Amino acid sequence: MNNEVYYLDHAAATPLESKVLAAMQPFFSDNFYNPSSPYAPAIAVRRAYDQAKSDIARVIGAKGDELIMTAGATESINLALASNSGQIITTNIEHHAVLETVKQYDHIIVPVDERGVVSADSIKKAITPQTTLVSVALANNELGTIQPLRDIATVIKEERQKRLANGDHTPIYLHSDASQGVGQLDVNVARLGVDLLTLNAAKIYGPKQVGLLWSASYVALQPQIIGGGQERGIRSGTENVAGTVGFAKALQLVADHRNYEAKRLAGLRDEMQRQLLTAFPEAVISGHQKHRLAGHLHISFPHLDAERVLFALESRGVLVATGSACAANKGTRSHVLTAIGLAPEIADGSLRITLGHLSTDETTPEATRRIIEEVQREYDRIQQS
Amino acid sequence: MNNEVYYLDHAAATPLESKVLAAMQPFFSDNFYNPSSPYAPAIAVRRAYDQAKSDIARVIGAKGDELIMTAGATESINLALASNSGQIITTNIEHHAVLETVKQYDHIIVPVDERGVVSADSIKKAITPQTTLVSVALANNELGTIQPLRDIATVIKEERQKRLANGDHTPIYLHSDASQGVGQLDVNVARLGVDLLTLNAAKIYGPKQVGLLWSASYVALQPQIIGGGQERGIRSGTENVAGTVGFAKALQLVADHRNYEAKRLAGLRDEMQRQLLTAFPEAVISGHQKHRLAGHLHISFPHLDAERVLFALESRGVLVATGSACAANKGTRSHVLTAIGLAPEIADGSLRITLGHLSTDETTPEATRRIIEEVQREYDRIQQS
Repeated sequence: MNNEVYYLDHAAATPLESKVLAAMQPFFSDNFYNPSSPYAPAIAVRRAYDQAKSDIARVIGAKGDELIMTAGATESINLALASNSGQIITTNIEHHAVLETVKQYDHIIVPVDERGVVSADSIKKAITPQTTLVSVALANNELGTIQPLRDIATVIKEERQKRLANGDHTPIYLHSDASQGVGQLDVNVARLGVDLLTLNAAKIYGPKQVGLLWSASYVALQPQIIGGGQERGIRSGTENVAGTVGFAKALQLVADHRNYEAKRLAGLRDEMQRQLLTAFPEAVISGHQKHRLAGHLHISFPHLDAERVLFALESRGVLVATGSACAANKGTRSHVLTAIGLAPEIADGSLRITLGHLSTDETTPEATRRIIEEVQREYDRIQQS
Repeated sequence: MNNEVYYLDHAAATPLESKVLAAMQPFFSDNFYNPSSPYAPAIAVRRAYDQAKSDIARVIGAKGDELIMTAGATESINLALASNSGQIITTNIEHHAVLETVKQYDHIIVPVDERGVVSADSIKKAITPQTTLVSVALANNELGTIQPLRDIATVIKEERQKRLANGDHTPIYLHSDASQGVGQLDVNVARLGVDLLTLNAAKIYGPKQVGLLWSASYVALQPQIIGGGQERGIRSGTENVAGTVGFAKALQLVADHRNYEAKRLAGLRDEMQRQLLTAFPEAVISGHQKHRLAGHLHISFPHLDAERVLFALESRGVLVATGSACAANKGTRSHVLTAIGLAPEIADGSLRITLGHLSTDETTPEATRRIIEEVQREYDRIQQS
């Protein structure tokens, strides 16, 4: 394999930013104390932990004590869904952490359109008197499609008001997993209109296995991990001080550079898309062409076997995904591509390309050239056979 | 505060060993890939992860794929207890992660004796036809008392055989949280006779928020965190590769030095205990005097206020606990000291001193001197008032 690596899979994993590691480092060794211990050095650790939570909260327009720190987005999502007391509505392109977990509850799956968009109207039509939670990811991890979350929030607010007017106190809340969007979009909870929000440090150049669930003060969470009573009794276990400090630093860094980075990535991505479509006019771009994460490019080469392309690209040092990392590993067709109605012969030739910090002005055009060469080689091969 | 710190609270938290951090470091940055991604660099990360699990498993005499990696002992304990299909038996000195979680299930609490020992016989008497799980920590985190786990395992094995002989296929398993003991005791699962075992990296100079549950292949675990299907579908979420590699390294290091370190700590502890009892003959040592973790010293100074002593010691740079970190922070009397029948005027003057890597031949005698001075000062103060 080529020593030079062109990493185009930032939606699957991101490298830990060196500034983030530097922020975490003191809490590995010097400030290793248990934040629940009563002596001053431990109290200083507790303060650093609370400060990190406040710093995270400020970025999303919330308060530190409204955050429950978790071991990642999957745990956060499980915790969010467990807060429902009736029926959950979600979409057919959510992450497995949502789609597998809702099976435990009364639930309704709302389909998305061919761009991967769930309309506020389709959510509105799905709501029943039993609905207590709507869970829609801010942006889809395969397509990059950004959902009309504010419109959905408005629908839910209207339903809540309608219920109250009828003397019905059944709550209805909106949860969103914003793990994929937080590096590029505004995730202010008030502006999004959400009642619960999941974030994940691992997707924004922060530490892995560090996530959080924000919930508004009026949402009644149900503890899923019970013990010493940490995190307001909602999530027990000694606090991950280094991880939380790292999360705060990572979030601050992406928030500081969000506008610049989103523009930069969109520029690189649009040029890559243009060149790929010029070389292969029959290629299909999926996801919403306007409301899409800046670094996401989902492209299908009809009649090609994406896995063959992936391995050919790997031999050239270009790392891409064929779908989400989870689905890819199971050898099953992505439920997202089925949901948007992509024909099998198109879906099976799909690459998910996600740009990020490791994508530069030099590496991205070179990666594009290599993709064009390898895709062309595959088309030549199947035409000859 | 004195700049010199005498850390005598290793049961609450341990500093990350520099060799452990060094082992983790490559997986923060260079090898940051998602272990579920299909390309070679990610497969290398997957291999490192599986290797780390195998390395951990070897130390406890198990197989790597029998381990479920978690975010710490609390999550592991919750997962272990959720595997029960009937009634749980535990003791009245278990960690809150056990005592709070069993409240969700049919359960029986068996009392310990005044040394903190739960006898195999008392477990035997408590077993009912509905009992499916017995959960007893290998060593108590406050007293250091080591439980007769093999005897308890024998009782459970006999009950299992009795049931089978009667055509009753109700399972009965033994779970142990060995978080506090793994640095000093043999934790081979076959020799302990357990069916489920919880371990925690944070207590052995490894990374925080990294734990595991080992379970024998015949135990049916119930997934608590649902999603992408990682960890055999039992615990979803992108794997904590750096944390698991760190756990493996930390465990290997403590296992390699276990005998030497246990002897060294017991020597330091015994001399500290001798000097403290010489200075204060009325002091009460709790916990089993023979079957006790090498670094643990639980000592009560009758009529003193342990919190006053703790803060006086802190001003001299000596960091100790008054109980477990969780209970201490809540300002309530330790349930462990109540369980062993310590009178309130003795319990309230209790210090938990736990030695470890930061305890040396130089620091420990000096810390002992400072404890004697401060305890004497407190006794002088209350006698004058």
